[in-house]
Amino acid sequence: MQISEMSHRESRALLEGLGIGRLACARENQPYVVPIFFAYEENRLYALSTLGRKIEWMRGNPLVCVQADEVRSYFEWKSVIVLGRYEELPDDAAHGKARGHAITLLSQRFQWWQGAFAADRLRAHAGDPVPVFFSINITEITGHRAEPDPAALTAPAVEPQE
Amino acid sequence: MQISEMSHRESRALLEGLGIGRLACARENQPYVVPIFFAYEENRLYALSTLGRKIEWMRGNPLVCVQADEVRSYFEWKSVIVLGRYEELPDDAAHGKARGHAITLLSQRFQWWQGAFAADRLRAHAGDPVPVFFSINITEITGHRAEPDPAALTAPAVEPQE
Repeated sequence: MQISEMSHRESRALLEGLGIGRLACARENQPYVVPIFFAYEENRLYALSTLGRKIEWMRGNPLVCVQADEVRSYFEWKSVIVLGRYEELPDDAAHGKARGHAITLLSQRFQWWQGAFAADRLRAHAGDPVPVFFSINITEITGHRAEPDPAALTAPAVEPQE
Repeated sequence: MQISEMSHRESRALLEGLGIGRLACARENQPYVVPIFFAYEENRLYALSTLGRKIEWMRGNPLVCVQADEVRSYFEWKSVIVLGRYEELPDDAAHGKARGHAITLLSQRFQWWQGAFAADRLRAHAGDPVPVFFSINITEITGHRAEPDPAALTAPAVEPQE
């Protein structure tokens, strides 16, 4: 297997195409990682969540990491790692524009995922938990790809060690 | 979408079946998350890695989190979150047995992934970076599943907010 670095452009294209990844946050050096659906644009990821452990932890410590990948096998994958800072987008005058933009991008992404059924999730229903909209303001993007080593394709089979 | 808790047994079965997830570690409250291939057994995940940021960080802070999932869509997924502690399995008398066990389990898992080609990766090649074998000693497993809300299937389409 050969691992090489992806260009910034390739990494951004992967993020844009995937729209799903894993978000890690940390409290008192205990990391916590959950799946996340996001919309990517320029230097930000936009996402939403109901209140819970990850929102509470990110409010306390805005340092986060998002990882997104396309895995074909142990030997063939692309993975992008984003470091960034959590910024909440509450429903107020100061954040109205960014929040509206996040909702538009996420709606488009959700429609792409699953049509009208998905877009319906962004509409408030009586009794639904209120979603928290937020952005991850990206400070670093790195990407790597693994490709099978051509020589290994002809390697003889080995038995696992007992 | 309805989210419910998975039983301990279902969570363990998902971990066992997947063998791939994301490992988060943290240093000075900066989380870092990478893809990980693992073998699961009882209260441990076994994995290997070449030296790098994640091994260095886990040596400094053994608190980790592993997340593994099966995502069909935004509305239909299963996700398991494991909290645990990193333990390195070096090639010495004290860890020989656990290390051998890890290699056996990972070999089986790798063969399952991709036949002999995959098992070849556990064999040392001259000039290859030396892999670090380790276990994650599990302290907590939680699992959740999301299922589409039947009512939403008939909801009318909505336009994204401008």
